[in-house]
Amino acid sequence: MAVAYKQLVSTAEKMETSLASLSPPSVILTQDELKKIAAYKAVEFVESGMVLGLGTGSTACHAVDRIGELLRQGKLKNVIGVPTSKKTHEQALSLGIPLSDLDSHPVLDLAIDGADEVDTEMNLVKGRGGSLLREKMVEGACKKFVVIVDESKLVPYIGGSGLAMPVEVVPFCWKFTAKRLKDLFEDCGCVAKLRTCCEKINKKEQPFVTDNGNYIVDLYFKKDIGDLKIASDSILRLAGVVEHGMFLDMATTVIVAGELGVTIKNK
Amino acid sequence: MAVAYKQLVSTAEKMETSLASLSPPSVILTQDELKKIAAYKAVEFVESGMVLGLGTGSTACHAVDRIGELLRQGKLKNVIGVPTSKKTHEQALSLGIPLSDLDSHPVLDLAIDGADEVDTEMNLVKGRGGSLLREKMVEGACKKFVVIVDESKLVPYIGGSGLAMPVEVVPFCWKFTAKRLKDLFEDCGCVAKLRTCCEKINKKEQPFVTDNGNYIVDLYFKKDIGDLKIASDSILRLAGVVEHGMFLDMATTVIVAGELGVTIKNK
Repeated sequence: MAVAYKQLVSTAEKMETSLASLSPPSVILTQDELKKIAAYKAVEFVESGMVLGLGTGSTACHAVDRIGELLRQGKLKNVIGVPTSKKTHEQALSLGIPLSDLDSHPVLDLAIDGADEVDTEMNLVKGRGGSLLREKMVEGACKKFVVIVDESKLVPYIGGSGLAMPVEVVPFCWKFTAKRLKDLFEDCGCVAKLRTCCEKINKKEQPFVTDNGNYIVDLYFKKDIGDLKIASDSILRLAGVVEHGMFLDMATTVIVAGELGVTIKNK
Repeated sequence: MAVAYKQLVSTAEKMETSLASLSPPSVILTQDELKKIAAYKAVEFVESGMVLGLGTGSTACHAVDRIGELLRQGKLKNVIGVPTSKKTHEQALSLGIPLSDLDSHPVLDLAIDGADEVDTEMNLVKGRGGSLLREKMVEGACKKFVVIVDESKLVPYIGGSGLAMPVEVVPFCWKFTAKRLKDLFEDCGCVAKLRTCCEKINKKEQPFVTDNGNYIVDLYFKKDIGDLKIASDSILRLAGVVEHGMFLDMATTVIVAGELGVTIKNK
């Protein structure tokens, strides 16, 4: 299976980077295979000696695995990773990737991470995995931020997938904060839902708790929310909000793996 | 002593509310006595049936005590309090004030709270007591917000007292966030310090932890930081920041108790 993947990655690497000029590959790829292709392509940006932001989620997981593999093979050396979640911290540790944090390395060379949505301006929605705050802190401190997605993540506008735009809130009076968030985007048909985790206590759903001890309120929009910077500031001004999942003007490269091959878009 | 206080409050009540027209009282009052005068004056705004935001700190403490007293005396009825901290929650409970929260009462009639600084436009610095986030949530939900201070809290501009403007930050990589806060106000000679608590472990100072499980970074400015709304948005945009202690355009009334009497300023 690993060999098959390598062939796919190799095929993708040889393809032109403009979708228009690509011819369809001869196999139908699963979404996870596409994620892996994008992840492997991104790891080509990694050089020995770099301080790296290590993303969280199913796509970023492939990139972290690949970095570990190249270190083991001696093809990469002296790389330091700054993980964006406890989960990625565990994964990187198990792969033997030397780790640090933002306090020791306030400037990073490169981050690689997935996204839940990418709009036409390379703005992102992130955080369906629940790690948006640490991801934003780490990726905001990187000289380059490479985003890796399969083509299902491309949207005409933020919220356009119909899936959640997550907001991290303090647990104190979260219902009040959720109501204020909903009211903020009333004109866009906004629905606000507390994220719950699988674990139930006395058959009752429990709130999902972030690495920072906070809750997540997922926002769903029926319409385009308009100017994203205005939306961002309006959300952040609500006392009770810790951070939101819109990553504006942060990605420097987006790698999209699709049925027609790999596309690379730079800022 | 309680009688003496009542006389002072009564004296203050009879005074004109413009400083210019006041004649000096015949006794020198301590800072705590001035705080109590302002607090008692504020409680005159409270009416039976109101939902009240209960502030935190040495000045607000007098107001909460007074509300409890009036309830016991039957002079106030059917008042519901929404406390802004665990400490005020305990105080109000012990006084028998019926309590609720923002989830059940998202709109409040009136809040009474102290402040660490009040500028000429009635903008505030709050949070030296560490409760800025809950205070901002509760007081932002009030139709009227009465601020009670002694005259030492009046400043020509925010930061003008030379004391701290607190920022609540997530514990994760707080040094990194403190550095970014310092850099934001570099031109104003900003110094950023982690707030510590009295408790020491192995002779080492421990971070002060807020009711929300976060840390406080205290900012000290050597110069006026300029446009406060721009400063506010810049702080809130930093991932890792939860909230700051500037309360802009929130106070509707400021009651100042000074050696020359009580001044009331309305928006």
